[in-house]
Amino acid sequence: MENIKEYIEANKKRFLDELVELLKIPSISADKAYKKDMLKTAEAIKKRLLEAGCENAEICETPGFPVVYGEKLIDKNLPTVLVYGHYDVQPPDPLDLWNSPPFEPVIKETKIHPKGAIFARGACDDKGQMYMHVKAMEFMTKNDALPCNVKFMIEGEEEVGSENLDWFIKNNKEKLQNDVILISDTGMIAKDVPSITTGLRGLSYVEVEVTGANRDLHSGLYGGAVANPLNVLSKMIASLTDENNHITIPGFYDKVENLSAEERNKMAEAPFSLEEYREKLDIDAVYGEKDYSTLERASIRPTLDVNGMWGGYIGEGAKTVLPSKAFAKISMRLVPDQDWLEITDLFKKHFESIAPEGVRVEVKPHHGGYPYVTPIDTIAYQAASKAYEATFGKTPIPQRSGGSIPIVSLFEKELKSKIILMGFGLDTDAIHSPNEHFGVWNYLKGIETIPYFYKYYTEMTKK
Amino acid sequence: MENIKEYIEANKKRFLDELVELLKIPSISADKAYKKDMLKTAEAIKKRLLEAGCENAEICETPGFPVVYGEKLIDKNLPTVLVYGHYDVQPPDPLDLWNSPPFEPVIKETKIHPKGAIFARGACDDKGQMYMHVKAMEFMTKNDALPCNVKFMIEGEEEVGSENLDWFIKNNKEKLQNDVILISDTGMIAKDVPSITTGLRGLSYVEVEVTGANRDLHSGLYGGAVANPLNVLSKMIASLTDENNHITIPGFYDKVENLSAEERNKMAEAPFSLEEYREKLDIDAVYGEKDYSTLERASIRPTLDVNGMWGGYIGEGAKTVLPSKAFAKISMRLVPDQDWLEITDLFKKHFESIAPEGVRVEVKPHHGGYPYVTPIDTIAYQAASKAYEATFGKTPIPQRSGGSIPIVSLFEKELKSKIILMGFGLDTDAIHSPNEHFGVWNYLKGIETIPYFYKYYTEMTKK
Repeated sequence: MENIKEYIEANKKRFLDELVELLKIPSISADKAYKKDMLKTAEAIKKRLLEAGCENAEICETPGFPVVYGEKLIDKNLPTVLVYGHYDVQPPDPLDLWNSPPFEPVIKETKIHPKGAIFARGACDDKGQMYMHVKAMEFMTKNDALPCNVKFMIEGEEEVGSENLDWFIKNNKEKLQNDVILISDTGMIAKDVPSITTGLRGLSYVEVEVTGANRDLHSGLYGGAVANPLNVLSKMIASLTDENNHITIPGFYDKVENLSAEERNKMAEAPFSLEEYREKLDIDAVYGEKDYSTLERASIRPTLDVNGMWGGYIGEGAKTVLPSKAFAKISMRLVPDQDWLEITDLFKKHFESIAPEGVRVEVKPHHGGYPYVTPIDTIAYQAASKAYEATFGKTPIPQRSGGSIPIVSLFEKELKSKIILMGFGLDTDAIHSPNEHFGVWNYLKGIETIPYFYKYYTEMTKK
Repeated sequence: MENIKEYIEANKKRFLDELVELLKIPSISADKAYKKDMLKTAEAIKKRLLEAGCENAEICETPGFPVVYGEKLIDKNLPTVLVYGHYDVQPPDPLDLWNSPPFEPVIKETKIHPKGAIFARGACDDKGQMYMHVKAMEFMTKNDALPCNVKFMIEGEEEVGSENLDWFIKNNKEKLQNDVILISDTGMIAKDVPSITTGLRGLSYVEVEVTGANRDLHSGLYGGAVANPLNVLSKMIASLTDENNHITIPGFYDKVENLSAEERNKMAEAPFSLEEYREKLDIDAVYGEKDYSTLERASIRPTLDVNGMWGGYIGEGAKTVLPSKAFAKISMRLVPDQDWLEITDLFKKHFESIAPEGVRVEVKPHHGGYPYVTPIDTIAYQAASKAYEATFGKTPIPQRSGGSIPIVSLFEKELKSKIILMGFGLDTDAIHSPNEHFGVWNYLKGIETIPYFYKYYTEMTKK
């Protein structure tokens, strides 16, 4: 591994150019209009996997968007690492808030990224972080440094709930057999504070529709006498949390894991400045569940957020309409040991039960996933920790993230292996937001760190 | 007047064709993109006024869209009727709910309109009802039946709050001098139940914006820890009405006129079937302020309705975003003696005061108008009543409407004359909604009834 820094330095420009190429394709899985771009992205990744040294790569059909699979198997007595990532991205709207078009990547310096950051939808989540693994693979195969077997499974439906990955895994258990699953789809605490994600929140995503009269009405003639779905939906949503920001859905907290005072104290030791947090978001105060800290609210506690809401006249000027319908997209982040199917069901029942007379309510479950927590006393975790030590000179901090990768718990269940979440993005990278970016330094640091994981994991497994 | 029925019958097709021509122009005042169409509509009306017998017609510039003015002055000793109407229309969205394009008028039979109804945006509100007056004028001038002076003032900003009509009236007081103002921009109870509108609600229309963090955030990483403007806005809106659907804004009801038990009993005598009302709207129950009937809720009581609300991801599929901003358009219908400027101010202060920590709130007043009530013991009202008797064979019922014509109270204040609201539309005509229409029978009945008003009003004034 002694030459890894030199190899990266020598190939830096190409590594960036290749990622930029990938980021130009608008692989938006949520919108059917981008189907061709999805397939184009899958083809591009297959090609790159072969170039990086995979002996075999293929585009595997699923009932939805395909999975790109690649592998290099050097010895069946050696361990096998399965790399998971995704090539689909979040929709880029609202477009007018982007400083440069989301699918025309530009590299710009920022305060946090003095060596530049690539601005584009998917730069960090997850094309950039996924592609670190392809380039780490290239380094290992070109420098005779691949110590074990490796498999890649890059899907195209992560941003829409990995609907068909379940099907794919169940139908390809043998092909996907592995000893450890390696994922870079999370973040780290700060550039000088490496961390390994040891927990992910689960998710239940639903869409609700409130219908009043059978048509839009004149708010003068009918206002005050007929239920207004927007007023009603506001009241219904408002009632889902109480004055302490506890969620009021009966049974919602029944299975929530309560951390011990000791565990909470340990969490509180993580480096965190509330002032800096507020400053970066430009808010005068944080907001959340009573009796929990900001870090706790964003990791070990479940949430209920309206992700989108609409109804009535939303154009320029004024229209005095009493709309027939109002809509909201609502997601709940879940923690161990909440079951997302059960929570979705509790939500649906409760939401329907609080609908007042005069409206009809429909709840459409969208997708979801189980929360996940991983222990830190495994060989895999220790190998990852040593890899960070080798490249950052610091022991990484185990951290529970507020985000969700719904498929992670499925991996463990179906493939019976542990998952290691080595993320190199930063909270400020604006994933899912306008101006998403990924630091050039972080990208290259990821490529440098990953081969060490392979090395230590293989060495420690042999012992 | 003996030949009026024959004249209408003989010219029916042309009367409809001319209205259809007018309805084809998308004169949407709320959207600047339609400026050319606004001016084209004004030109068309000017031409029609001259054809109908006005000696003089002109397009009068204002700081906004122009007012079309026309007149025929036959004798300064005779009374002068000022006809007010508007040539602008509401935006047609949501477009996908129209059965035929909003600016491609079609005549179709319906259950309520067996003689056909013209389906188009503006068919009833107000191009159709305004054009009845132009055709009534034509009848009177072509048949030597115009008994008095007449002036037309047709504006282009009624649907956006008549912002510049105030300016126009104040600058043209002499030109607009009149004895009575005649308006058809309201409805009647039913085709066999003629009514004259004796009251209009006032209006205060505001737009609110709630801002949380300085950018859209990932709802996994930040959810639960940072205020979500959509959750917050829902809570704020929900709190504006209590469990009895009373509005909670301090001082809101202070000036509300309380009707006597006698007046309320009289209102309750108006023909109204709650069952039919529910059936037509396809709702299982009505909804509104406790202790008031549906008719009262929609006329003598003030309201607060969300006319539009939006924020976050509203496209297809799912996006786990914690939005930076949430918006709502909110209108309050006001009753005597509420002052819309005062109410707007009370709303703004209250709404800002209930914003929780972690968000910033902005309230932008849009437009508004005063409520209006007219007595029924005037010559003008009696003349209108007799006109309906002549053509419907029934005495019309005085009725307070829930709608607003914000400019009406200004007319009275600036021009010192009484207003007569002779509406021929039906509640079911879907004004401001998709599939707006106006019955052919109603259109022709209006043209027939209006000349009688001129006749009786002139006769009764002479006495």
